[in-house]
Amino acid sequence: MSKKLSILGSTGSIGVSSLEVISHLRDSIEVVYLSAHSNSDLLISQALKYKPQAVCISNELKYNEVKSYLSNTSIEVLKGRDGLLEISSRENVDIMLNGLVGSAGMQPTLNAINSGVNVALSNKESLVMAGQIIKKALARSEAELFPVDSEHSAIWQCLQGEELQDIRNIILTGSGGPFRERNISTFSKISVEDALKHPNWDMGKKISIDSATMMNKGLEVIEAYWLFNFELENIKIVIHPQSIIHSMIELKDGAIKAQMGVPDMKVPIQYALTYPRHLDSPWERLNFFECQDLTFQKPDFERFPCIKLAFQSLQKKGTAGAALNLANDYSVDLFLKNKIKFTDIFKINKSCLDKHDWEENPDLETLIDLELWVKEHVKGFS
Amino acid sequence: MSKKLSILGSTGSIGVSSLEVISHLRDSIEVVYLSAHSNSDLLISQALKYKPQAVCISNELKYNEVKSYLSNTSIEVLKGRDGLLEISSRENVDIMLNGLVGSAGMQPTLNAINSGVNVALSNKESLVMAGQIIKKALARSEAELFPVDSEHSAIWQCLQGEELQDIRNIILTGSGGPFRERNISTFSKISVEDALKHPNWDMGKKISIDSATMMNKGLEVIEAYWLFNFELENIKIVIHPQSIIHSMIELKDGAIKAQMGVPDMKVPIQYALTYPRHLDSPWERLNFFECQDLTFQKPDFERFPCIKLAFQSLQKKGTAGAALNLANDYSVDLFLKNKIKFTDIFKINKSCLDKHDWEENPDLETLIDLELWVKEHVKGFS
Repeated sequence: MSKKLSILGSTGSIGVSSLEVISHLRDSIEVVYLSAHSNSDLLISQALKYKPQAVCISNELKYNEVKSYLSNTSIEVLKGRDGLLEISSRENVDIMLNGLVGSAGMQPTLNAINSGVNVALSNKESLVMAGQIIKKALARSEAELFPVDSEHSAIWQCLQGEELQDIRNIILTGSGGPFRERNISTFSKISVEDALKHPNWDMGKKISIDSATMMNKGLEVIEAYWLFNFELENIKIVIHPQSIIHSMIELKDGAIKAQMGVPDMKVPIQYALTYPRHLDSPWERLNFFECQDLTFQKPDFERFPCIKLAFQSLQKKGTAGAALNLANDYSVDLFLKNKIKFTDIFKINKSCLDKHDWEENPDLETLIDLELWVKEHVKGFS
Repeated sequence: MSKKLSILGSTGSIGVSSLEVISHLRDSIEVVYLSAHSNSDLLISQALKYKPQAVCISNELKYNEVKSYLSNTSIEVLKGRDGLLEISSRENVDIMLNGLVGSAGMQPTLNAINSGVNVALSNKESLVMAGQIIKKALARSEAELFPVDSEHSAIWQCLQGEELQDIRNIILTGSGGPFRERNISTFSKISVEDALKHPNWDMGKKISIDSATMMNKGLEVIEAYWLFNFELENIKIVIHPQSIIHSMIELKDGAIKAQMGVPDMKVPIQYALTYPRHLDSPWERLNFFECQDLTFQKPDFERFPCIKLAFQSLQKKGTAGAALNLANDYSVDLFLKNKIKFTDIFKINKSCLDKHDWEENPDLETLIDLELWVKEHVKGFS
């Protein structure tokens, strides 16, 4: 029996990698839904290749083009935010891979869980913004969350076969991004082009900027908190510039388990789709004899103050994670549009975290209102 | 309910470390038997501290001393090889930790298995010499083998929660010993003192020499073969001079799981005693920020030809592993007594492997006869 898979964000970095994974797992996975934001050309060719039951194009201006190219097929075509929310609610799916970028991914995650569909979660904002809400939804549902981030997948893999009470710490590794050694006095002059050059991973633009500010690592701390139920003081960050060790767990007897490999998102994607199996795969394997020396450093919170904001948001909980994440979505967007400086990302994020109207038990409505406030508040900075 | 533990070789390196482990696990482990070769002073003080039901001193000349010191206690005192074999056969034990050094450890391992007692196995010679016989005994018994070597424990820990069919390779790491970079033309001049200086691990003399010749790593390959049921081509060696990664498994999807930590035998000893739990422990933990860079190299079979002998013995099986191991016991003993050169260890081991009267399905009798032959054959070299 093949697993029925839907992919949100199929034309993005994670979506494209997951279709590569599926190509070699073809017999065991059936693609039933694909959704894309606006890359209609790629969505059309994916649809023709994988023959899903339906596709959704979020950018409504591209709907007619997609509809017309697929008119000779039986593939249903949906559009806009409504189409995305509908596809993510459908129940005839075993796993939904959420490869959406930013806060737009939150509600589709909730929809799938509420429909009893397991979620392979690449969209870190889902848990960062709505961790409490998602945990409640999971408790009512039979659905599970499978992490797709390389770090959280590594921790998940290391946790297999272990009892949670025997784990002392989970240790997120991070490369330190492209500016780990850049003179800190020049940070305000960092260009978009500089910031998009990640040393190890080939990623989407938003995530590359998050890696450059290390907001990424902060968001991962928040995600790890909700995924694995660890106390904040038991979630550690180790800078590991080679990105060979993808993360670790430290057990109470001092043993450390690490998951390692070449930096290739196809490994965590496949694991989420084939869990608990590690099936044969055709891609490059780690060669220890050609591997760089593995080094470790303390995270530098002065250089990368965005990480501190993440820890602060977890001390506050409630709406704090959502405010931080929404602020970061908007500030990174402004930076990518050359409207603010690199160092303004932190300033905006901090301002939104500090100044938003904090609530202890937000619901989805609260978060939607919060987004409106953040959008307004951020305008003052560009 | 506390576990009843017997310790063979309680005054040796592994035995002493295991009693340190037990000191902090005191409530959950009860020491019922202790055996030592000839260190009567330490055995007596261990007996007075841990109050076992019985102790055994192998060196019969020390029996009266031990007997006399323990005369005011209810502790039974056994002696000699017979006493050791009796203690290892007793059934009122949950785990027997076999910390004996050399081929003397083989029969006690079999005795425990035949008595339905789990064996925490540090004595690598048991599986190297009698792998086939031990596997048959395990199949008839409810007893299990728990590895205590840091390498095999690491692999065992990494295998938890995984399906064997998903593992591509097991990867034994080795420090490369003290002569990884020494000029190879000077190997015949290596002194006993030089060879006993291991860079990372504090170990017994026999094992330190095995580490210097890397026969140790060869014996570990053979042990891994019998412990984990992997084909020879799926057992790899990676030189890792820092001894931080204790060994690894490579899964079929390219993920590598590693077990890491400070080089401290107390970690694998405790895991064997508390399996499947990783209980809290008081000893030093790995600090990544003070850790050396982790490096990897290919094993150099020209420099350390003893490793090749191990692979050859596994191609032959039958008596080959036993011949190699017995040869190594005697050659290392001669080297430690300054009767042969360092490089003669390989020559003797190879000669015994090549020239012994090979049999496909040895029983214990065969192995005892083989030991007599090896003892004679080795005499020609000193």
